[in-house]
Amino acid sequence: MPLIVQKFGGTSVGTVERIKNVAKRVKRAVDNGNKVVVVSSAMSGETDRLINLTKEVSKKPASREYDVVVSTGEQVAIGLLAIALKDLGVDAVSLTGWQVPIFTDNVHTKARIKKIGIRRINKELEKGRVVIVAGFQGITENRNITTLGRGGSDTTAVALATALNANFCEIYTDVKGVYTADPRIVPNAKKIPVISYEEMMEMASLGSKVMQIRSVEFAAKYGVKIHVRSTFSEEEGTWIQEENEEMEKVVVRGISHDLKESRITVVNVPDKPGIAAKLFSALGNANIVVDMIVQNVSHKGHTDISFTVNKTDADEAEEIAKKVAKEIGATGVERNDKIAKVSVVGLGMKTHSGTAGKMFNVLAREGINIYAISTSEIKISCIIDEDKAERAVKALHEEFIENGKLIVEK
Amino acid sequence: MPLIVQKFGGTSVGTVERIKNVAKRVKRAVDNGNKVVVVSSAMSGETDRLINLTKEVSKKPASREYDVVVSTGEQVAIGLLAIALKDLGVDAVSLTGWQVPIFTDNVHTKARIKKIGIRRINKELEKGRVVIVAGFQGITENRNITTLGRGGSDTTAVALATALNANFCEIYTDVKGVYTADPRIVPNAKKIPVISYEEMMEMASLGSKVMQIRSVEFAAKYGVKIHVRSTFSEEEGTWIQEENEEMEKVVVRGISHDLKESRITVVNVPDKPGIAAKLFSALGNANIVVDMIVQNVSHKGHTDISFTVNKTDADEAEEIAKKVAKEIGATGVERNDKIAKVSVVGLGMKTHSGTAGKMFNVLAREGINIYAISTSEIKISCIIDEDKAERAVKALHEEFIENGKLIVEK
Repeated sequence: MPLIVQKFGGTSVGTVERIKNVAKRVKRAVDNGNKVVVVSSAMSGETDRLINLTKEVSKKPASREYDVVVSTGEQVAIGLLAIALKDLGVDAVSLTGWQVPIFTDNVHTKARIKKIGIRRINKELEKGRVVIVAGFQGITENRNITTLGRGGSDTTAVALATALNANFCEIYTDVKGVYTADPRIVPNAKKIPVISYEEMMEMASLGSKVMQIRSVEFAAKYGVKIHVRSTFSEEEGTWIQEENEEMEKVVVRGISHDLKESRITVVNVPDKPGIAAKLFSALGNANIVVDMIVQNVSHKGHTDISFTVNKTDADEAEEIAKKVAKEIGATGVERNDKIAKVSVVGLGMKTHSGTAGKMFNVLAREGINIYAISTSEIKISCIIDEDKAERAVKALHEEFIENGKLIVEK
Repeated sequence: MPLIVQKFGGTSVGTVERIKNVAKRVKRAVDNGNKVVVVSSAMSGETDRLINLTKEVSKKPASREYDVVVSTGEQVAIGLLAIALKDLGVDAVSLTGWQVPIFTDNVHTKARIKKIGIRRINKELEKGRVVIVAGFQGITENRNITTLGRGGSDTTAVALATALNANFCEIYTDVKGVYTADPRIVPNAKKIPVISYEEMMEMASLGSKVMQIRSVEFAAKYGVKIHVRSTFSEEEGTWIQEENEEMEKVVVRGISHDLKESRITVVNVPDKPGIAAKLFSALGNANIVVDMIVQNVSHKGHTDISFTVNKTDADEAEEIAKKVAKEIGATGVERNDKIAKVSVVGLGMKTHSGTAGKMFNVLAREGINIYAISTSEIKISCIIDEDKAERAVKALHEEFIENGKLIVEK
């Protein structure tokens, strides 16, 4: 009997009506002869409501307790979904993170899954039940509640699919799949039928909010096939899977953009060994993920170091940067929240050259200034002004996807 | 170092501001040199919101899943309270029912506490932390989440005080203590400084909503001293403790009333052995608590059996009664939701007679019809029409408390 893991996001379970619809959808998978494990996010808006409560109580809520509060959102959703399924005559049981159990490290609010116990789930599946697991949460070895950070339900789903050796993992969301660009900005954007893990990771990390990057990483590591699709439609979505030769023929798979980062610059840093290490170790110790790092050419023994972080970490990162700046004798710290990162992503870049030059040309033609550049084997990203992001994405999509000159090599 | 258990009800933690005030109150107990274990209810309104969600999903929500959803209310409250305490510089840690752990039987929505593990709490107390425990919830041996039913947080507090051998248990609520009658009805009602467990149990079961009866039962069994007092005042409240000779001198401690019951009558029951057993076993199997039972004198081999249940159980009880009525050949089932129970309660009744007659006289004088009477060693209850309850309570309070003819024997 095939085993499917189905994950439903917050919008999919956003109202009682929608929860009932999700239950019908799950029932269909059961009726089609599948064993089903469901992972649910909190009802949309609920996580924000809970976070706001913690922030009303304290400007810096204790992270262990933040997790205790915020993890209740998923618990409500799985209980309601189990009630809805039983109401349809489908036997179901909900399991919280500790009931599964899903063990994580002890980095509260951003925990990583370490170990999953599958005995209880298998016992329930054998009884013919649908098992509904709370996404986004786990426990430490000391039985403290943790959350995985935003989007963590995807990771829960993929980790469960791996642990249970599921046939595949369906990610139900409010969009129909992964697009060549954000359709709200580019009306001509097309749904991508198949994408490699690597490309998807770049797209995800670059702001295509369909899936959380850590979950794609996880899926890639264990070869879990993922099907991203819409809760509100029967249409096939986007399959995320291992790359093959066919996929490499596409140079640019998509254009993504990200408005969620801030840039922080430490100005006039003495250009000595160990300075960068000091700064980025301090940020690492605070569990802040740094994205791009740019160090300019040294001038009279001094240089500037810029880096970007998620806006939610920017206050803390700025504080740390200021402290380190003082210690190392830098002049000061500057911060810019009004930046955007636009990127072109594609497996084909591994074997085809010329994409970078083309991208810079397009931006130049549109009169868009580039503040920083970063590249990997399969993507090129540029930091530009936030208010130019839309124009940039449109122009890049036209160039690389619609005109398609460089896209497909037959 | 003294150990105190402090329990805060839903109104006491009803807003973020109030949660901060509770934190200050707890801090004071810590500053005064006490170890403190706090038990919190859900923020007021929250439990109802969660119950309504389950009922929107299903008319008869699966009880295991109902508990999963509803128990999140307390989890949010303890997390927020721990955040507030840490914000005041008091080290604190929240623990859910499973984290303590508090083991219960597996009667979902009305579970009873069976066993409490105290190792984790003691470990946290030894670290100098305030331990904040979620009221109203526990887990079964199979690691399913249970709730104790309405008011269950009191039971959690008393059970913890027992298990931890606390010096006493403070129940913080929105009233200043236990009164001789409901002050909203009887403006002359007085706060009772000391009351025995037994009297309190009768008062509680009869509708003085200050404490849940099961928790008083528990306290009586293990001799835990309880102090019921207001969250919003420094005043001493009411101490609930073992009875002593001094207390027996008071014949009537208070007048209570209860509008929460419905009366169900099975009409024209064949008067044969085993009939009552059949009816009340069926109700017991459905975990419905029956309060008063009245069987009238048999007439031509037939009789009527009346009983009262909590209004929340009335639909189910009526359904069961109808089924049994059919089986045993009774004519039908009648139901009345518009009843009230008024009672006089006092330890002194054990040794003083005449209270019953006096009570019936007062009601007769007020022109109030009595439908059923039930007595115990220390209380007399009458079922009357709901719309006469207020008049009855006022008259009884005047007779027994204010005029006090029979109250104190010097």
